[in-house]
Order: sequence, then C-alpha cells, then structure tokens
Amino acid sequence: MTNEEILGVTVLNSWKLVVNRFGKTLSELSDKQLQQQVAPGRNRVLYLLGHLAAMHDRMFPLLGLGDRLHPELDQPYIANPDRVLADPLSAPELRRAWTEVNSKLTKALERFRLEDWLQKHTAVSDEDFAKDPTRNRLAVVINRTSHASYHSGQAILAK
Amino acid sequence: MTNEEILGVTVLNSWKLVVNRFGKTLSELSDKQLQQQVAPGRNRVLYLLGHLAAMHDRMFPLLGLGDRLHPELDQPYIANPDRVLADPLSAPELRRAWTEVNSKLTKALERFRLEDWLQKHTAVSDEDFAKDPTRNRLAVVINRTSHASYHSGQAILAK
Repeated sequence: MTNEEILGVTVLNSWKLVVNRFGKTLSELSDKQLQQQVAPGRNRVLYLLGHLAAMHDRMFPLLGLGDRLHPELDQPYIANPDRVLADPLSAPELRRAWTEVNSKLTKALERFRLEDWLQKHTAVSDEDFAKDPTRNRLAVVINRTSHASYHSGQAILAK
Repeated sequence: MTNEEILGVTVLNSWKLVVNRFGKTLSELSDKQLQQQVAPGRNRVLYLLGHLAAMHDRMFPLLGLGDRLHPELDQPYIANPDRVLADPLSAPELRRAWTEVNSKLTKALERFRLEDWLQKHTAVSDEDFAKDPTRNRLAVVINRTSHASYHSGQAILAK
C-alpha cells in the first residue's frame, strides 16, 4: 500500500466503524423502541436516525458525488426539531434509507485518492478555498464521522 | 501549504473542534452539575470527564509522545464503571487535568508530518503493523476524536 492508500483506508475505517456502530444500535431496537426518547424530553431515536440519514444524504452534492436519494428528510429531521412535523417515512423505510445512503456513499469514498480528498467541497467558494484549503472533502468526512458518533452516544441510551 | 500540511491541519481541526465542544459543555456546568447523570441510571458527567481525560492521557505512550500525566485516572474511569471507586480528584482538579492533557497532546500533534501520522502506534507489533499499516497514529487520533464526540453527545444531555 502507498501512503496515499493507507491514508484513505484509515479515514474510511473510522467512518465505517461509526456508521456500523449506529447501525448495530438500530438493529437492537424494535420499530416501537425507535419512538423512545434518548433521555426525558430529548430526541427520539427515530429522529436521530432521520437526522443522520439526511445529513449523510446531503454529502452526495456536498462532495460532488451526484444527486441526493432522500431530500424529503431535510424538513422533518434537519430544519425542524423532533415532533414538529410528521415522519415522512415508516420506521422500516427509514432504516432502509439509512443503509442505502451509507452504502452508496461509502462505495464512492472508497474510490477517492489523496487529490480527491483534498479537493474543495461544494459549499465553499473558490476564493475562500484558496484562503483556507482545509475546507476540503476530507474535513467533511471526518467531521461527519464525529457527528454520527455524537448522536450514536445518545441513541445507545435508549437501549 | 503542501498537501501534507493540509492533511495534518484538517485532522487536527476536527480533533480541536470536538475537544473544545466538550470543554464548552463542561464550562456551562457547575461542579455540582457534573455529578448529574446524563440520563436516569447512566454515567455522571464527571465520570465521562474522567474517562475522556484518562483515554487522552493514554495517548502519550500510545503515540510514543512520552509519559502520561494522570495514570491515577485509569482505575476509576476506565477499568471500572461509574460510582464503583471514589473520585481521585476534585471536580476543579479534574477540569484542570482535562485541559492540561489536551493542551500538551495537541501541541505534540501539531508537529506531526505525514510520515509521523502514518507510523505505527505502540500497541501494535512490528509484525502486525506490516500486515495492516492502517494501525497507525492517524487512526488513533481520528478514532479518539469520534470517541470524545460520542461522550460529548451524552454530556450535553445533562445541561
């Protein structure tokens, strides 16, 4: 393996670890248990699932990897707090969306080389990127890994 | 900036973001509030603070960066669950340990170049590292970033 390859695999190992850990917690909860709040008065696990599925789905356009699969998740799970809007998908459908989004995304990321990782993401202008080249795709993936881990630590409290 | 420099800064930006986010939550809780459990029957925030301080302190020997600062934190906050052993430090002392460990660690990581990131960590043998070069220091730092984020998502529930 070249240094470039080691780098990509190391970053993706961490991404997969976190995505799979959240997936494991989901698999241990029934559809009914997904309606539980992670702590009194806090988000339901189903909201966290919708939120992470939506945030990861947004990574397709953000990383220049094509169109989104589930734009209908933004309003209920990003733009609004829990229990304001109705859930647009059933629990089994949302579980499938989560798997579908992450599987397609991970496959695309596995093709990245160092130059792909260090390219700008699409939410930063050429001018701003020239000033700060750390606003790259690697930053997006590492930050989304942390973000998924943050909510994973909450979801496990519902078990 | 060279690609190597961009890479190091990108990884450390994410590390600092997560460490600072946990620090912000701590700063918004009184010493008394640190005794709160993050959810009924779950870990106290103080335990999570001790746990993260201990895990980050262990990164000094794990990354070959020298001796630990607070080995006394392992028994109460890693080897045992919450409330089994007495807290060895007061809340203000533990807050200081957290800041001290992360500040020293981050300074050391800021000196890493690509070849330093891709070196093996000390818990893997030469033989195993030859088979799997992703068991490197970069993996440790990215995984510890996710780990801190996981518990940060829990600590915020005590607010």
